[in-house]
Amino acid sequence: MDKTEARITLAIDAMGSDQGPEEVLAGVSQALDLAPRNTEFHLFGREELLNPIMEQFPNLMNGQAQVHHAPEIVEMDEKPIAGIKGKKKSSMSIALQSLKEGTADALLSCGNTGCLMAGSAIRLRTLEGVERPALCTIWPGRERYFTLLDAGANPHAKPYHIVQSAILGSNYARVALGLVRPKVGLLTIGTEEGKGNEVIHETHSMLKEINGSIINYAGLIEGFQIFDNVVDVVVCDGFVGNIVLKACESLSKLIRSFLDEELRRNALRKTGALLSKGAFRSLKQRVNPEQFGGAPLLGLTKNVIKAHGSSNRNHVSGAIKIALDLVQHDMLTQVVEDIRESNEILRPEPLRSVDD
Amino acid sequence: MDKTEARITLAIDAMGSDQGPEEVLAGVSQALDLAPRNTEFHLFGREELLNPIMEQFPNLMNGQAQVHHAPEIVEMDEKPIAGIKGKKKSSMSIALQSLKEGTADALLSCGNTGCLMAGSAIRLRTLEGVERPALCTIWPGRERYFTLLDAGANPHAKPYHIVQSAILGSNYARVALGLVRPKVGLLTIGTEEGKGNEVIHETHSMLKEINGSIINYAGLIEGFQIFDNVVDVVVCDGFVGNIVLKACESLSKLIRSFLDEELRRNALRKTGALLSKGAFRSLKQRVNPEQFGGAPLLGLTKNVIKAHGSSNRNHVSGAIKIALDLVQHDMLTQVVEDIRESNEILRPEPLRSVDD
Repeated sequence: MDKTEARITLAIDAMGSDQGPEEVLAGVSQALDLAPRNTEFHLFGREELLNPIMEQFPNLMNGQAQVHHAPEIVEMDEKPIAGIKGKKKSSMSIALQSLKEGTADALLSCGNTGCLMAGSAIRLRTLEGVERPALCTIWPGRERYFTLLDAGANPHAKPYHIVQSAILGSNYARVALGLVRPKVGLLTIGTEEGKGNEVIHETHSMLKEINGSIINYAGLIEGFQIFDNVVDVVVCDGFVGNIVLKACESLSKLIRSFLDEELRRNALRKTGALLSKGAFRSLKQRVNPEQFGGAPLLGLTKNVIKAHGSSNRNHVSGAIKIALDLVQHDMLTQVVEDIRESNEILRPEPLRSVDD
Repeated sequence: MDKTEARITLAIDAMGSDQGPEEVLAGVSQALDLAPRNTEFHLFGREELLNPIMEQFPNLMNGQAQVHHAPEIVEMDEKPIAGIKGKKKSSMSIALQSLKEGTADALLSCGNTGCLMAGSAIRLRTLEGVERPALCTIWPGRERYFTLLDAGANPHAKPYHIVQSAILGSNYARVALGLVRPKVGLLTIGTEEGKGNEVIHETHSMLKEINGSIINYAGLIEGFQIFDNVVDVVVCDGFVGNIVLKACESLSKLIRSFLDEELRRNALRKTGALLSKGAFRSLKQRVNPEQFGGAPLLGLTKNVIKAHGSSNRNHVSGAIKIALDLVQHDMLTQVVEDIRESNEILRPEPLRSVDD
């Protein structure tokens, strides 16, 4: 393989993190030291802000990282379509354009999720045979991490969209979690046949049809099983997935704040908390793992990764590591192959473009 | 009001708790001391088991509590319809029969949720104008408790079913949480108009129509807002509600077990944990409040309350307290009135019975 073929280019939306561009660039700097020498980082944002930060990180000045000026910023409260179409010169928009033009292989952004999903749908195409993109998230389970998708890209999912999520999620779990045959479970209520609803029944029988060579389908699972590592890939429609994701993130914060309040309630508890502070730090890291800082929007012709708005440098670096893995393992080629095979088996209705 | 009119009879399914009938009867004994003198407790279960336990609690022998023999037990792993129809002599079945015949005003059971829901649908009717029952749960929020429904009684909800849940949940929140005008929120993804799905759009406009005299509708809410006490009554269909409920219960257990592991990892952390053990006890009580031990199945002609299978005596006693409140406040009459008013406004399709 010659050098040109092997070069990997990552587009980084350097704006849009709650912690400011410093933290994003610090994450890029960490990741750069671990990345292959032929990796290039294109940093999109206001050059008057980014250039001085670059100088704080000597390895960003070695030629692998370049700043690309983008005068506008998509704010966190912006509406999806308005944020993208109204701000064509934003860091997010110009970075997406570089994916579209083929300059970059993958994009990482900590910015507005709705705008990133809408922008990706507008600027990029779905992979051959894929009907809708799906947002994939990594969660902590009792013994190991698992993935859940769709976390909100497609809230009107038809059964076949959920089946495609199963294929997309399995491929992602192979690369990001290093699993050989990730087990897939369909999220429902009650695992007896006949429970759930029409979409579940139809999805369940399609998943059984492609079980084997394309996915490793373990069957229906209930809400209380998702954290028990019964499966590695939990699939559901984007409406359920988004609500469960946000409710769980929010519950986790609530418990942390309850615990914090209780530990400060008197001197004895405060002393105890001081002695065991390592435990609380480890707990936080287990629940919000830095090595999985990003949620990929799967099913597009390029790898698009959304990092949390509050990501620190370790989350950014973790997300970049995964973006590199996806490109190096050429996940997209395997996805296209799996989708083609599943379309042959399931012969779905004629494909449509993403236009909802 | 004469004594006969004011008498309250509670049916207690004494079997089906993971902790055995002792814990259930201990809970009844606690509740009895706080209940009005004219309250009667009918305890259903195997008399050879229950009678000896009765003798351990002197106040259960004062004439307010009676054992009614039921030779069979609905097990936790039984299928809904089979558990009820196949075990007509179970404590759950006979207790439901006493509600049907009008002997009892309310039922409390720690048993199999699916069987209790199916049995209630088979044995009892829905209140006049109510199409489907809804399972209502109480959750801890940042500042105070809130309700979420439907938690799984109706996984195929039409918009009007969700509207009825809003009415049922508002009435329950008035009595159980003591709120005058509980705020209702419709759970969705993205709160801009146009996001979500068809069911959400239709439900949202119906809720706006009955906002005011019947319910206090605060609008759409997202998954991350449910714990922030933005609203007091979170409504969603039974598919989403059940998954969110079970995922959150399970996450809460996971965090507790992670914390437990981390606190035992070395001597220093163990010492700290010992000093601050009061904080962990308070945390547990805040997340799993004993005063709200039961989840009512709302919309039926009688009050049916499901307590968690793992309920301790305090949870049982808390659930009985709420059952008494519902009867004393005559919640069902107010529900019928509100449903009638909402039917006048919304003129829905002809009513059907619960037959799914």
